[in-house]
Amino acid sequence: MARVVVDVMLKPEILDPQGQAVADALPRLGISEVASVRIGRRVEIEFTGEADLERAREIADKLLANPVIEDFAVSAPQEGPAA
Amino acid sequence: MARVVVDVMLKPEILDPQGQAVADALPRLGISEVASVRIGRRVEIEFTGEADLERAREIADKLLANPVIEDFAVSAPQEGPAA
Repeated sequence: MARVVVDVMLKPEILDPQGQAVADALPRLGISEVASVRIGRRVEIEFTGEADLERAREIADKLLANPVIEDFAVSAPQEGPAA
Repeated sequence: MARVVVDVMLKPEILDPQGQAVADALPRLGISEVASVRIGRRVEIEFTGEADLERAREIADKLLANPVIEDFAVSAPQEGPAA
């Protein structure tokens, strides 16, 4: 079993109301040092055999990302998720 | 400006119907080597000054993750997002 991670984020020029809502809430929590927040999706794909970045890219392209408004990045983490 | 990334994923024991739907669609695309797909959120926080992991953890705890069903991991990527 090998994991590939696909990070799908809105393109920088696309407004992100969800992230904006979080950013707007921070001053009320007393946090003022944040310039912006963007919220996207993290998709973890477990392959039965070897991690296949090309295959993951194909899946992201066909199923996970909307190329009109989103960019994605594919990566194979060395070990489990960071703690 | 420094970026901190918060990855929010459903706990392993919580069912993920969205990820399951993607996993179920893959055989129809001719992809059979995927065991499972889990879909969570990737949150990018831009700090005005230094990246502050402790602060990001506090934000995740208060605003980004539901501790009943979700785990989160905070990290500071070395450079920009992976291509």
